[in-house]
Amino acid sequence: MNAYVTGLAPAEPFFAPFRRAESYARTHAFDRPTLILDVDQVAEQFRALSRGLGHAAIHYAVKANPARPVVSRLVAEGSRFDAASRGEIELCLSLGARPEHISFGNTVKKTGDIAFAHSAGVTLFAADAEEELEKIAAHAPGAEVYIRLIVSKSEADWPLSRKFGVQPRAAMPLLRRARELGLRPAGFSFHVGSQTRRAAMWRPTLDEFAPLWAEAREEGFALDLLNIGGGFPAFYGEAIDAPEAYAREVMDLVEARFPGAERIMAEPGRGLVAEAGVIAAEVVLVSRKSPDDIHRWVYLDIGRFSGLAETEGEAIRYQIATPHDGLASGPCVLAGPSCDSADVLYEKRPMDLPLALKAGDKVVIRCCGAYTTSYSSVGFNGFPPLDLVCI
Amino acid sequence: MNAYVTGLAPAEPFFAPFRRAESYARTHAFDRPTLILDVDQVAEQFRALSRGLGHAAIHYAVKANPARPVVSRLVAEGSRFDAASRGEIELCLSLGARPEHISFGNTVKKTGDIAFAHSAGVTLFAADAEEELEKIAAHAPGAEVYIRLIVSKSEADWPLSRKFGVQPRAAMPLLRRARELGLRPAGFSFHVGSQTRRAAMWRPTLDEFAPLWAEAREEGFALDLLNIGGGFPAFYGEAIDAPEAYAREVMDLVEARFPGAERIMAEPGRGLVAEAGVIAAEVVLVSRKSPDDIHRWVYLDIGRFSGLAETEGEAIRYQIATPHDGLASGPCVLAGPSCDSADVLYEKRPMDLPLALKAGDKVVIRCCGAYTTSYSSVGFNGFPPLDLVCI
Repeated sequence: MNAYVTGLAPAEPFFAPFRRAESYARTHAFDRPTLILDVDQVAEQFRALSRGLGHAAIHYAVKANPARPVVSRLVAEGSRFDAASRGEIELCLSLGARPEHISFGNTVKKTGDIAFAHSAGVTLFAADAEEELEKIAAHAPGAEVYIRLIVSKSEADWPLSRKFGVQPRAAMPLLRRARELGLRPAGFSFHVGSQTRRAAMWRPTLDEFAPLWAEAREEGFALDLLNIGGGFPAFYGEAIDAPEAYAREVMDLVEARFPGAERIMAEPGRGLVAEAGVIAAEVVLVSRKSPDDIHRWVYLDIGRFSGLAETEGEAIRYQIATPHDGLASGPCVLAGPSCDSADVLYEKRPMDLPLALKAGDKVVIRCCGAYTTSYSSVGFNGFPPLDLVCI
Repeated sequence: MNAYVTGLAPAEPFFAPFRRAESYARTHAFDRPTLILDVDQVAEQFRALSRGLGHAAIHYAVKANPARPVVSRLVAEGSRFDAASRGEIELCLSLGARPEHISFGNTVKKTGDIAFAHSAGVTLFAADAEEELEKIAAHAPGAEVYIRLIVSKSEADWPLSRKFGVQPRAAMPLLRRARELGLRPAGFSFHVGSQTRRAAMWRPTLDEFAPLWAEAREEGFALDLLNIGGGFPAFYGEAIDAPEAYAREVMDLVEARFPGAERIMAEPGRGLVAEAGVIAAEVVLVSRKSPDDIHRWVYLDIGRFSGLAETEGEAIRYQIATPHDGLASGPCVLAGPSCDSADVLYEKRPMDLPLALKAGDKVVIRCCGAYTTSYSSVGFNGFPPLDLVCI
């Protein structure tokens, strides 16, 4: 990788959060799609969120970006971790995280992985079902558990499915069952939904669960743990609150509703790492399906199966910088390089891109630090996984 | 891996195509989700399709399953190859395929990859746009090209998107442009759509393109190559034609419509390898979201990001064998193990599964030889990619 001006137009002053990674992408050459991740910026974001969250503990959602330099830096910053699997627990431990700072947050765990976590010193587990509590009791006897609740009143850009959590009305029996099984039911968790852009949007969810918290404590459960999950946003072109103010406002809302919640956990993933990364990519082909086609088709060397999985359903709308920004533009369907007809990024809502765009042009895709590298396929269509450079 | 009876009910006589791989899955233990692929069965399917296809050449679509034992066996059987990338070309060459038997079938190619293919002796390239022809002319001068056409009249289970191909009315200018550029325009390609279950379903597509073939030959293009693509089906529970009869009927339809097509290429991927593989997996959790929930939620240790990507949109409907088949059953939502709310396999159309199903039960997922291992993420949520055992 030589220092090399890629020919991207100097264009607009970069949106501040992207400055270092984007500058690196614009001044280096890459022989395949590459995520450039600014680890210092991750640390800065961690500190901003920490200031706003006050006494709440950040458990970084490792799945957002499990790169070793990221996890290692967050260990050094004092972060705790939310792990989805045995693999993620091993990763965190190998980089110096203390087991009591790792929460096994997946509600769906193999018994062997529960036993492993228990033997490694992990003491906190998520559950949303009786069978899961039984597995935890059998393989991590005496562990602390929190019950994950389904959110019905989300104002997030992408509310989560019903996949995780139990209906609130079925939560009390799970607390009782946990106690019967010799576990220590410590509280609840939930997820407001991905990309909850404004702190005020947390209100309906918090209002929904506050009565359940009170009910459980009245019944004698010594709940003191509230895991407020993720949902912390990143900038994809639509305005979001700044991280410190956002976190502080969320905490104000939480503390007014959950008396006795001495231990509050927050699990930012996207909100910690997304803005710290950009992807350097390349245009492979620009075409029209017929001379009178309104839309051009622009094919990049990265697609849904090599890092941009979150474009499924056109959910995440990435911002793309090109060498011709500011010149005349028009609507484009954007697609990936694989021979897979589903590997189309934006078609229902086409992208506006410069008319001068052509094969070989370098582009920078912004806000790619989260949920890109780890979603890459092992080699679909013979294309290698997304490369990573940490700066 | 010890010989081990997994406890799957002997159940129904297996559907014949799955016999060996399924038997292996039922009698061995696996410590993570594993594709068992019967390479002999791939060879048998190759021979059956070859008999039906007569003088047409099979170019195996490597992307369906790039496992080295599969490609190697197909080289030995005399197969040719359809490659989507430089990586797939290198794979085929490394296993003894001759470069003139490899078609670079992706219409979206980096110039460096075109130059590589040319230098390696690959002589046949796909294109669907003027800019692509220019790239080929510059980096593989004199190469033979075929123009890919968009299919509008598909009867397939899953017609392809508009991503690949040019509108037929814009095809003649591309033939002319190819000639101007010193390339050798040899014919057309198209794709009837994935999983075209009956040979008769090819008719509307073939009818659509026959006039264009005649028009091009009348204008003096010495077209002799017709690439009929893939679409050859596999058995996912809905009846399909047997491979030899299917292929023969397709060829009868083709030959009646494309006089002078001396070179016919067929590109089965799924149709060659899908039925030769099964996945051995495990139930991780069975739960209900509330006591009155009609549906159970069944979580497997494999999901959309670790091999079952084709369940997106609930498109491919896998058949699943459990240890309790034949006992009382009920509707289930089926989901993967990751902490990703999109990792749900079947929800709109729930699966009927035994009421006795529980965490730890081994299951066998049928007809998984195609589009599973290569779609696996590198390690989303810390789960390793789908494992592979070739028998």
